[in-house]
Amino acid sequence: MLSPPLPELIEREADLRRWFSRRRVLVTGGMGFVGSNLVHALVQLDADVTVVDNLKPNYGGNLFNLEGVADRVQFVEQDTADEKAMKEIVGGFDAIFNLVGQVSHVDSMENPSGDLYTNVMSHIGLLEAVRKLGAKPKIVFAGTRGQYGRPAQRPVDESAPIAPIDVNGINKHAGETYHFVYAHAYGLKATSLRLTNTYGPRHTMKTARQGVFAWFLRQALDGEEIRLFGGGEQVRDWSHVRDVVAALLMAMASPAADGEIFNLGSEPDSLRQVADLLIAKSGTGSVKAIPYPEHLKAIEIGDYIGDYRKIERVLHWRPLVALEQGIGETIEYYRQHRDRYWQREAYP
Amino acid sequence: MLSPPLPELIEREADLRRWFSRRRVLVTGGMGFVGSNLVHALVQLDADVTVVDNLKPNYGGNLFNLEGVADRVQFVEQDTADEKAMKEIVGGFDAIFNLVGQVSHVDSMENPSGDLYTNVMSHIGLLEAVRKLGAKPKIVFAGTRGQYGRPAQRPVDESAPIAPIDVNGINKHAGETYHFVYAHAYGLKATSLRLTNTYGPRHTMKTARQGVFAWFLRQALDGEEIRLFGGGEQVRDWSHVRDVVAALLMAMASPAADGEIFNLGSEPDSLRQVADLLIAKSGTGSVKAIPYPEHLKAIEIGDYIGDYRKIERVLHWRPLVALEQGIGETIEYYRQHRDRYWQREAYP
Repeated sequence: MLSPPLPELIEREADLRRWFSRRRVLVTGGMGFVGSNLVHALVQLDADVTVVDNLKPNYGGNLFNLEGVADRVQFVEQDTADEKAMKEIVGGFDAIFNLVGQVSHVDSMENPSGDLYTNVMSHIGLLEAVRKLGAKPKIVFAGTRGQYGRPAQRPVDESAPIAPIDVNGINKHAGETYHFVYAHAYGLKATSLRLTNTYGPRHTMKTARQGVFAWFLRQALDGEEIRLFGGGEQVRDWSHVRDVVAALLMAMASPAADGEIFNLGSEPDSLRQVADLLIAKSGTGSVKAIPYPEHLKAIEIGDYIGDYRKIERVLHWRPLVALEQGIGETIEYYRQHRDRYWQREAYP
Repeated sequence: MLSPPLPELIEREADLRRWFSRRRVLVTGGMGFVGSNLVHALVQLDADVTVVDNLKPNYGGNLFNLEGVADRVQFVEQDTADEKAMKEIVGGFDAIFNLVGQVSHVDSMENPSGDLYTNVMSHIGLLEAVRKLGAKPKIVFAGTRGQYGRPAQRPVDESAPIAPIDVNGINKHAGETYHFVYAHAYGLKATSLRLTNTYGPRHTMKTARQGVFAWFLRQALDGEEIRLFGGGEQVRDWSHVRDVVAALLMAMASPAADGEIFNLGSEPDSLRQVADLLIAKSGTGSVKAIPYPEHLKAIEIGDYIGDYRKIERVLHWRPLVALEQGIGETIEYYRQHRDRYWQREAYP
């Protein structure tokens, strides 16, 4: 991956600082993986940050994720589906990152109503509060490659058909569209970034369901055997969360992003390659190829590679963190803070 | 509109009778407008019909809609969102018409959670019951032109982008997609017909929100003034419910429809033309052009004309009821049964 010239990076940071410094910013799901990494960046940019998170068990929220910035952030423990409570919170924010979400494909099939609650009703609560207050914030939303389902061709750009093959994809797409319908009907501004496989520090390590990268990493560090379904030949984009955070910030700060949908993307690598890198970098763990489980075949999307030329053209964003470097940093983070992430909760 | 040759119509009816006769058929929302007209047709085809309906106030359910066939139909008063209750009901049906729905665009914007309940959670309840029983029925679903939003070109075929501009369109699309995801993951069969403006007997006459045709008709029969937003120049397809019922039956009986989405369509006419016809046929009422209300502009889709060539090609369906004839019959129905439809409920 080629970095942009250094002057461009310095200019980007200066632009973001001008926009975010002293600005009141709301981050929903701010105790979770992407949300908390964003909050760290916002604090560095001198923003006045409020986090709303319900800290729901078995999801990604973790108080330790805000370690180091906790004294510079307001925290409200609140479920965003509660419209009345949200009316007391959302007033006065003209910048809202709406990062509440549930990402497990398997969970969405086992409990579609639970996925609907987190991925749709949570957003209705927030958006209805905004509407009833007559507020007109800009909201940046995190969509997912899952909205496209099993892609007919790769790389996948934003004109590809919306064709989810699991419940999570249906609900994420509905949740995203709510933002644009409200923007059009009530004069808000909305942007959605459709994320691929995001990895990095502050991801939950409690379950195998919230992200394959984190689970592989845990197994590697624990010296366990990483089981690769079908040999792990499926290709994914692996986005480091620092790159995702940059895209979120740039999308918020740029009027050119208003009303737009952007795919993110990165270097494509197979699950097998990622597992091998994790084992090589951590020095422990092993891989074993096993047949693809029957009950998961119907929701397997095959290879996914995102086409991120639109966000590159409009916002000058591109991924900067190479996979090998990102994996090294991530392993280092979890080695340091293992006790904050390793304890498993009972999974319902 | 040209009717097919009579031998073709006779053959169609014979095919449907062979398929439906003595077959156990479940109709959800079977007390409502489209559902009850379908039940009448199913009884004529000698099917063994069970109706599930929650008879929710202010929706389309009306016990009188099954007058004349009530002794040949099983009725269960039940909300389909209740998965446990549905597990007691859905076993043993290999043909399910899932016609539960809420169609008011304005209501969906004022109460998005209510629309989500009826247009998504109701289907999750049914589909989860089917999944947990391990049943593999064919389910025919009623989608809507609203899934396409404001069409970029007309007539609108099934490859047009899904771009709803109101909450109802978002939720209807999610509800439809649930059927196809379940079909793919669990081996059911699913078909969706995307309906346009359906009119005819047995539609609720209690509110202005559930359908512009019915409201115009009520005003004409009551000798009132029909207010045409923006002069009523918007063009719509007006499908007589008898044509819609034929499409539903043909979609259920044909394996060629499995996994498919079909647009319906009909003769396009403006709201103004429909109002004029209603007034001419009823001999009462008047029209008045008024400016388009500001708060409705954001969810107005402009003209809509459906391209129904796919269902014509695959199922040999086409609309047969000409608007003028359909309007005459519909007026006659409501004149006869006015006391069963005219009483208004308090609207929340």
